[in-house]
Amino acid sequence: MSAALTKNHSVHLLEELRRSEPLVQCVTNTVVAGFTANVLLALGASAAMVDVDEEAGPFARIASGVLLNLGTPHREQREAMPLAAGQANDQGVPWVLDPVAIGTLPLRTRLAGELVALRPTVVRGNPSEILALAGLGSGGRGVDSLAGPEAAIDAALLLASDHGCVVAISGAVDIVVDTTRTAYLSNGHPLLTRVTGGGCALGAVMAAFASLDDDPFLAVCAAVSTYTVAAEIAAGRAHGPGSFAVEFLDALAGIDGGTLASRVAAA
Amino acid sequence: MSAALTKNHSVHLLEELRRSEPLVQCVTNTVVAGFTANVLLALGASAAMVDVDEEAGPFARIASGVLLNLGTPHREQREAMPLAAGQANDQGVPWVLDPVAIGTLPLRTRLAGELVALRPTVVRGNPSEILALAGLGSGGRGVDSLAGPEAAIDAALLLASDHGCVVAISGAVDIVVDTTRTAYLSNGHPLLTRVTGGGCALGAVMAAFASLDDDPFLAVCAAVSTYTVAAEIAAGRAHGPGSFAVEFLDALAGIDGGTLASRVAAA
Amino acid sequence: MSAALTKNHSVHLLEELRRSEPLVQCVTNTVVAGFTANVLLALGASAAMVDVDEEAGPFARIASGVLLNLGTPHREQREAMPLAAGQANDQGVPWVLDPVAIGTLPLRTRLAGELVALRPTVVRGNPSEILALAGLGSGGRGVDSLAGPEAAIDAALLLASDHGCVVAISGAVDIVVDTTRTAYLSNGHPLLTRVTGGGCALGAVMAAFASLDDDPFLAVCAAVSTYTVAAEIAAGRAHGPGSFAVEFLDALAGIDGGTLASRVAAA
Repeated sequence: MSAALTKNHSVHLLEELRRSEPLVQCVTNTVVAGFTANVLLALGASAAMVDVDEEAGPFARIASGVLLNLGTPHREQREAMPLAAGQANDQGVPWVLDPVAIGTLPLRTRLAGELVALRPTVVRGNPSEILALAGLGSGGRGVDSLAGPEAAIDAALLLASDHGCVVAISGAVDIVVDTTRTAYLSNGHPLLTRVTGGGCALGAVMAAFASLDDDPFLAVCAAVSTYTVAAEIAAGRAHGPGSFAVEFLDALAGIDGGTLASRVAAA
Repeated sequence: MSAALTKNHSVHLLEELRRSEPLVQCVTNTVVAGFTANVLLALGASAAMVDVDEEAGPFARIASGVLLNLGTPHREQREAMPLAAGQANDQGVPWVLDPVAIGTLPLRTRLAGELVALRPTVVRGNPSEILALAGLGSGGRGVDSLAGPEAAIDAALLLASDHGCVVAISGAVDIVVDTTRTAYLSNGHPLLTRVTGGGCALGAVMAAFASLDDDPFLAVCAAVSTYTVAAEIAAGRAHGPGSFAVEFLDALAGIDGGTLASRVAAA
Repeated sequence: MSAALTKNHSVHLLEELRRSEPLVQCVTNTVVAGFTANVLLALGASAAMVDVDEEAGPFARIASGVLLNLGTPHREQREAMPLAAGQANDQGVPWVLDPVAIGTLPLRTRLAGELVALRPTVVRGNPSEILALAGLGSGGRGVDSLAGPEAAIDAALLLASDHGCVVAISGAVDIVVDTTRTAYLSNGHPLLTRVTGGGCALGAVMAAFASLDDDPFLAVCAAVSTYTVAAEIAAGRAHGPGSFAVEFLDALAGIDGGTLASRVAAA
């Protein structure tokens, strides 16, 4: 399935996001927390970084969507994550798991295994992380993937089938799978990999979109298309990674359905 | 009392801030720590994010002012905050309490109650937070307030009278109260709400200004006016929330007494 | 030794960095973590903020270089740092110690003393921090140094001789010493001190360069020259500290050997 086929639905969801301003709870790493909040605010969503154990569970019940990102799994966040996932499940709130840099690092690899068993709505990762989460690879070096996205499709299908989740594999072409569908989304720009949080913040955007639709596959496609088209617009105005990050936030705030429809590319 | 009445004093304090470079200790949330430090540095103050228990108390004795912000109340910060407040009180160092997102979240609501009883110099919050701190409301959804600022004036007066503090209520018109005075400050721009830390960093700026004057009411008015006039200047140069944040830091560095005097608006 | 003498080597190392994309593990403070990662990514290196105790040691074995920065020494980071240093030593991975704001603050002063005894490859600090680490001064006020860099040269030589490290003293003129050589590097711009992380991120860049050369003295000189020349380029395009930070990242991404060679200045 190409992005062109999901395009009209993506336009509809972007307009819905602007109307409803979903509130996304992020339990995310300290490196990208500020950028992630700024991405959500720029897009028109709300952000709440509620990540301590006594608060994360109750807050997940009132959030529109939840992101659990393992980038800096400090003790309080490790305690908070399963509680947030459990309460989100109990209340029917969609949640996204981003298993950053698992595979080589045992603590977060175990934690990711526990969390995926709680059946996230969406799993987002690079090929190395998806392979590691499925038990099929040994992981990358930190946040950079050493494998191409195609290599991880079988792993993604396994995760989708075992845990009932949508899986998004990041790369030059982003791939989104569930048990019956696969989408190849080819918008984007390499500068997104030169800004810390370029991938992590997309997980938060997926949580925002997933709150708007009963079909998380289409919601994830809409999130990826909106995000990567904004990146293309920003790259056209930027002179390097510093100005790209600034232009990217401006582009997320400015992008509308018409622009999205005109730029979504089939892979 | 309108901003016009406090204008000359605000100009004086801004010039004094540039001369004395007050050192602001921030125990603040991980999402906005970087932006907050950049706001202080841009304005001409110094920033020190000293937030672990063994250090926060001793450092509060040598800081010019202290900010305690409850945005991500991790365990070490929860232990550090009362120690910093106590030592600041002991040494006569002004401190600002920002009870982010209290009301719905029990842990931080309890902590805010303990801290306000230690008699902060200034309390800063949105209407939901001020209502919750005074025990008159149930709080907002995360950091976004659902009530207008006027609704919180009675709560602010109650806090001012019970705890001897100045209370600043954020909104399209900012309201500053103590037991005898109320100021309505109407500068500002909505883009400030689209940048994470747009409110939180103002708490740090209040701590910087409060260190310069024995009258914290006038100091808070000066902080709000300087901050919101800089936001207006930045908005005039920005194309979205990304460029706004950049222009805002430039405007804080560039604003002088003359610009401030010419742009402060009466509500 | 002036920068001119190390210039050709700096150009060589910058080109080598672009080819090999060293992976720098940062255990650093929450205020500057995002900016530090963006600096590394802009320059062409990779960044991994692996800072919890169970992961920091194993990861240091596979990193190209390691930064230990004491800016917000939370409990998990305090446990992680000696483990990372030990494993880095075991594996011959270079590591940089940045003893932020030691002297006045007892917790981090003790920690810095323990870490320097583990023989870091490089120590980076302002004059107050270098004096305090050598036991010769009482420290500054937070991150700002009250002493000039010349005052700290004897302390730097003492550290270099006792612990076998290169010591870099930050200031308008940066000074780099080991037991036999001293370099005075005069590139740079005051705006670098108006952006939080302006100093801290340089520690991460030193770790990146130190991974490329068996002579850490020359590697540190290359890191300082690249960083400070990029700052000069950025300052020429900036209108304040906000736009400076953006232009600085663009300049780090754009700087090449030719530009570096043409702008490195002798002190």
